[in-house]
Amino acid sequence: MSDLKQRILQAVQPDLAAIETALSANLNPHLDLVRDVAGHIVFSGGKRLRPLLMVLSARVCGYAGDYDKTFSTALEYLHAATLLHDDLVDGAALRRGKPAAHLKYGSSVAVLVGDFLLARALSVSAATGSAKIVRLLAELTEQMSQGEVHQLMRKGDVRLTENEYFDVIRRKTAVLFETACRVSAVLADAPEERESALAAYGYNLGMAFQIADDLMDYTAATPELGKEIGADLREGKLTLPLIHALGHAPAADREWMVAVVQNPGFTADDFHRLVDRLRRFGSIRYAETAAEGFIATAKSALAGFPPSAPLATMLDIADYALHRRV
Amino acid sequence: MSDLKQRILQAVQPDLAAIETALSANLNPHLDLVRDVAGHIVFSGGKRLRPLLMVLSARVCGYAGDYDKTFSTALEYLHAATLLHDDLVDGAALRRGKPAAHLKYGSSVAVLVGDFLLARALSVSAATGSAKIVRLLAELTEQMSQGEVHQLMRKGDVRLTENEYFDVIRRKTAVLFETACRVSAVLADAPEERESALAAYGYNLGMAFQIADDLMDYTAATPELGKEIGADLREGKLTLPLIHALGHAPAADREWMVAVVQNPGFTADDFHRLVDRLRRFGSIRYAETAAEGFIATAKSALAGFPPSAPLATMLDIADYALHRRV
Repeated sequence: MSDLKQRILQAVQPDLAAIETALSANLNPHLDLVRDVAGHIVFSGGKRLRPLLMVLSARVCGYAGDYDKTFSTALEYLHAATLLHDDLVDGAALRRGKPAAHLKYGSSVAVLVGDFLLARALSVSAATGSAKIVRLLAELTEQMSQGEVHQLMRKGDVRLTENEYFDVIRRKTAVLFETACRVSAVLADAPEERESALAAYGYNLGMAFQIADDLMDYTAATPELGKEIGADLREGKLTLPLIHALGHAPAADREWMVAVVQNPGFTADDFHRLVDRLRRFGSIRYAETAAEGFIATAKSALAGFPPSAPLATMLDIADYALHRRV
Repeated sequence: MSDLKQRILQAVQPDLAAIETALSANLNPHLDLVRDVAGHIVFSGGKRLRPLLMVLSARVCGYAGDYDKTFSTALEYLHAATLLHDDLVDGAALRRGKPAAHLKYGSSVAVLVGDFLLARALSVSAATGSAKIVRLLAELTEQMSQGEVHQLMRKGDVRLTENEYFDVIRRKTAVLFETACRVSAVLADAPEERESALAAYGYNLGMAFQIADDLMDYTAATPELGKEIGADLREGKLTLPLIHALGHAPAADREWMVAVVQNPGFTADDFHRLVDRLRRFGSIRYAETAAEGFIATAKSALAGFPPSAPLATMLDIADYALHRRV
C-alpha cells in the first residue's frame, strides 16, 4: 500500500466505520429480497468515497450536528442505485469481482431495487428538512440518467468527440461528486462561497476520478479491477485514451482500431495490441495529463479554507485519485 | 358516455387543460430521445386522475397559490416512471393500446428514462420548498418499488392470500393516490385533520380503483382495455376474483383453475371458461363488493369538508371509480 493511501485510511478510519454502520442501519427494507439485493450492491467492497467526501466537506464547513453520517448514506445509496441500473443497461457481467446483480437476481429485481435505493437516498435527504438539498439530489439524478442515455445512444460510435466524452462523464460521475460535497456545505449552513468552492472541488475530483477509472480499463489487471480488462470497450464505451488515439493515429492504425472497436468479440491479443498503440500515440499519457489538470483545479478550489486535518485528507484524496490502483 | 362521467369531465375540463400544459412544460429533458420516450408514456392518453386529485385536494383546502398545476405533474411523472419500469418487469406488450416503451425503445432506455421521470417528479416537488412533501414522495417511491418486488416474488403463486393481495395493491396503487391527496393538503398548509382526511380518501379510492382495474382484466373487452384481456393472468398476477374463487371452489374446479394459472399459454376459450367460473362462484361480485366498501369509506372521509364544487367532483370521481369502463 502506498504511503498516501495509508495516510488517508488512517485519517478516515473512524468515519469509515461510522459510515458502514449508517449504511446498514438506514437501508430499512420491508422485504428480505430487497435487503439481499440492495446488500449485494451496497456491501460489495465499495470505497465509500462519496459518503466520505460528504463527511469531510461538512467538517471543513464547521458542521457540529449529528446527522452527517446518516446523511452521507444518501449519495452511496444513489450511487448503488445507478450501479444496479447501469450494469443492467450495459449488460455488465461483473461488479467488484462478483456477478452483477441483474445476472444473480434477474433484471426485474435489479430495476426495482434500484428504484428503492434511489427513493431511500431521497428519503434520507428529505429528513434534513432542507428542500434545497433534495432539489440538488433530484437534479443530480436527472443529470445522471440523461448522461447514461447519452452514453447508450453513442455506444460503439467511433465519431464520439472529446467534448462529448467530457459531457458524458460530467453527467454520470462528476456531478455526483460535486453534489456530494455541495449538499454537505448546505447541511452545515456554510456561506455561499464555501458551498461553491466545495462543489468545484467535487466536480473536478469527479472528472479526474472517472478519467482515471476509464484509464484502468486499459492499464489495470483483471484481479485488481474486479472485472475483465477491456470490459468498457467490449460494451462499446469509448473513453479518453481511445478517442485521443483515433484522432491522432495514422490512417492505417486508425482503421485497425476502428475494426477492433466494432468487433465486441476482439481477442485478448487484439486488446494488448490496442493498448500498445494507445501508449505509442501518447494517448495514455494524454488522459493522465487531463486527469492531473482536473486534480490541480480541485485542490486549488480548496485554497480559501483554513488548514485542518479534514482539509488535508481532502487534498490527499485528490492526489490519490490520480495514482489509485482501484 | 354515462351522465356521471360527463358531469366530471365538464367540471374538470379547464383543470385538465392546464395539467396537460404543465406536463408538457415541465418535462424539460436535455436529450431528444429522453423527450421521445418520456412523451411516449406521459402523453399516451392517461386519464390524469392523479394530478386532477391533487388540484382538487388543494382546492378543497382553500389553496390560493399558483403552483398547484405544476406541482400536480409530480405524481403523473412518478406514475409514468413506474409504468415504464413495471411494464418492463412484467414483460407487458401493450400499454393503452400502444406498444410498451421497453419494446419500442429497448429495455435500457426504458430503465433510464424511468429514472429521469422519477427524478423530475422529485425536482418538481422540491421546488415547493417543503421537505415534508419530498419525504412523502420519497417514501411513496420506496413503498411502490417494494410492492412491485413483492408482486414479482409471488408471481403465479396460487397460494397468494387475500391479505397479501391487499398489501400489494396498497403499496403499488393506493399509497400513490393517498400521497397525491395528502401532499396537496401540505402544499395548501391545511390543518392536520384535513390532511388525514384527504389521505384517507385517496387511499380508499386507490384501493377501489385497483380492484376495479384488476376486475376489468376479466370483464372488459380488449379494445376498451388497450391490452389483451387476461393479460394480468398471463403475467402470473393473481387478483381478487381469482383468489376468492380459488378459496371457494370445489376441489375439481380449483384444480382446473390452478392448471390454467400455471399455463401462461392458456387459450381464449380456457379464459372464458375461467370467467364463467368466477361468476358462478360469486367471485366477480365479491370483488365488486370489496371495491364498493372502499369507495364508501373514501366518501365518508370527506364528510368534514364544507360543500363545494371541487368536493362534489371528488365524490363523483369516487362513484365513477366503481363503474368506469377504462
